[in-house]
Amino acid sequence: MSNWYSDTFGQYLKEIEVELLRTCQERAYVAPLYWQMVEHHFRWDLNSPQSPSFDLNAINGKRARPLMTLLVAEAIAGAYAQAMPGAVAVELLHNFTLIHDDVMDVSETRRGRITVWRRWNSSQAVNAGDGLYTWAMRALTFVPEPKIARAMRCLLEACMSTVEGQILDIGFETRMEVSTAEYVTMIYNKSGALIEGSARLGAILTCEDSATVDAYGEFAKNLGIAFQIQDDYLGIWGDESITGKSASSDIENKKKSYPLLIILDEGSESDKATLSKIYQQEKVSKEDVKTILDILKAVHAEERTRQLTNDFYDKAIAALAAVPTGSKQHDKLLGLAQFLVKRDY
Amino acid sequence: MSNWYSDTFGQYLKEIEVELLRTCQERAYVAPLYWQMVEHHFRWDLNSPQSPSFDLNAINGKRARPLMTLLVAEAIAGAYAQAMPGAVAVELLHNFTLIHDDVMDVSETRRGRITVWRRWNSSQAVNAGDGLYTWAMRALTFVPEPKIARAMRCLLEACMSTVEGQILDIGFETRMEVSTAEYVTMIYNKSGALIEGSARLGAILTCEDSATVDAYGEFAKNLGIAFQIQDDYLGIWGDESITGKSASSDIENKKKSYPLLIILDEGSESDKATLSKIYQQEKVSKEDVKTILDILKAVHAEERTRQLTNDFYDKAIAALAAVPTGSKQHDKLLGLAQFLVKRDY
Repeated sequence: MSNWYSDTFGQYLKEIEVELLRTCQERAYVAPLYWQMVEHHFRWDLNSPQSPSFDLNAINGKRARPLMTLLVAEAIAGAYAQAMPGAVAVELLHNFTLIHDDVMDVSETRRGRITVWRRWNSSQAVNAGDGLYTWAMRALTFVPEPKIARAMRCLLEACMSTVEGQILDIGFETRMEVSTAEYVTMIYNKSGALIEGSARLGAILTCEDSATVDAYGEFAKNLGIAFQIQDDYLGIWGDESITGKSASSDIENKKKSYPLLIILDEGSESDKATLSKIYQQEKVSKEDVKTILDILKAVHAEERTRQLTNDFYDKAIAALAAVPTGSKQHDKLLGLAQFLVKRDY
Repeated sequence: MSNWYSDTFGQYLKEIEVELLRTCQERAYVAPLYWQMVEHHFRWDLNSPQSPSFDLNAINGKRARPLMTLLVAEAIAGAYAQAMPGAVAVELLHNFTLIHDDVMDVSETRRGRITVWRRWNSSQAVNAGDGLYTWAMRALTFVPEPKIARAMRCLLEACMSTVEGQILDIGFETRMEVSTAEYVTMIYNKSGALIEGSARLGAILTCEDSATVDAYGEFAKNLGIAFQIQDDYLGIWGDESITGKSASSDIENKKKSYPLLIILDEGSESDKATLSKIYQQEKVSKEDVKTILDILKAVHAEERTRQLTNDFYDKAIAALAAVPTGSKQHDKLLGLAQFLVKRDY
């Protein structure tokens, strides 16, 4: 977490963390293992928001989704307390998907900590995710009664999209031919939809105007897509000393990220064949990485990826500027947007 | 499905199936695979309730939970239409747990059909379950507004218990020592809680009296536990020609079901050691089965298991008789209870 981020959003992050912990502790669990898995995943065993030594920098994520919910609520209503159940719900929901994704991707660590399935086992990790999902939904039942149905359907819609995005993503792994258009659909569903839902929830909980809800949703949706494509950019052309991952790591891991799909969409037959051949090998050598980087250069993948990020980012900013209900305080939302997309880490 | 069951409940079963299918079809899915998995799991590809040749006997389960919801609603209000969103929700929720359980238990078939994970893969099956869970919750957002929060929390509470029960159950697999008391806690959470929740939902959606909700909940909770213990009984002493499973199948599969836990609770040290030793073997021989059946006899496990089923069944019936709001039409609920517990199949 950058200093700027924790300086700017520290108060929100602290309150979110306190509420997440409080919500999860609201039930006396029959299965002690459930609580152990939740504590481990959120790192609350090391860094409890109830402890005087609580460290913002040691929380297990950026909390970008609940922050989105609260900042939208604050932009609309000048205060965010009434949106807190929504913030808690989106973050618990996001963490349910992370725990299940780690099982599916066989990821051994997350943010430097051993993953839940790796520490216990896949079955228990699936259970831990199912439990967090349950508690996410429950958090949202505490919004004012006339808002519940709308808030619930908003979040459940986002969640169904997230699940469908994950289904598409897993499906892509066993297909060589994936178009860039299919890919953008996948990342919108897998990641963008929940960021969109987070913004929509912030608006639903603070206003009745559906055009306002849509505008903030449009902002967050495009931002979410821009964020993912920037991630793909950094996975190939990122600065190793800043990202902490080896440059070209996405090529070494044979990811079919956006830049590589440009080759499949528009490369020559021979370039496509070269990529296919290398991706079918057990290991990708330094030489192979160089070959692919050259092909990427030939199809202008770097500029085009950067351009696509910028296009979605610009759409996001335009949507924010077009929020219908008069002039709004959007400094913090713009700060969050910039932090998420205009980054090199 | 017995003739009595389909004759008595046919109209409900048909309406439930139509509503399940309609609910799942309400969304246009981005990932065609999601719909394929759902259709396969529910057997709607073979037996669609929209088709003139729809066969009640070919649906993928008893639909005992949604039936419970509707029968309780009908007993209270004389009609069950207003409880249908609850019925759909509990059945979708139940099927989400089945799909996840099949992954965890590595079960290759369910009701004669290849399981979702076996046909596709574990990751996609986890996704299919997550999607059904999402749609279960969404179904419940269509109840009248003043009921939503209560109905949601009721179902989410049941769901958290189900998840915790599954966590306990998976944990028991790697422990030899499990007490009968721990076991009953596990089966209440894993199976009883959702049956209880199904009855509670039927009551919540048709009345405002919390004592009535509690009474129907108590009925269904005890019924659910009795059903599971009867299942354990049949897994050892069931008639092969009726259950369709080989007699003593639970011993062959090294299940630590209720009767076997009686040995751990109260058997002699040497009996416990014998059971432990046999369960640590790769395979359980016919001779081993006989040895264990003899030990079960020595601790009166058959009578005690039967007795426990009867105790919970009697508690269930007593709770039903004690529903506070006057005399009720409980014939169908009693029929369902008898069908679920007083069975030999």
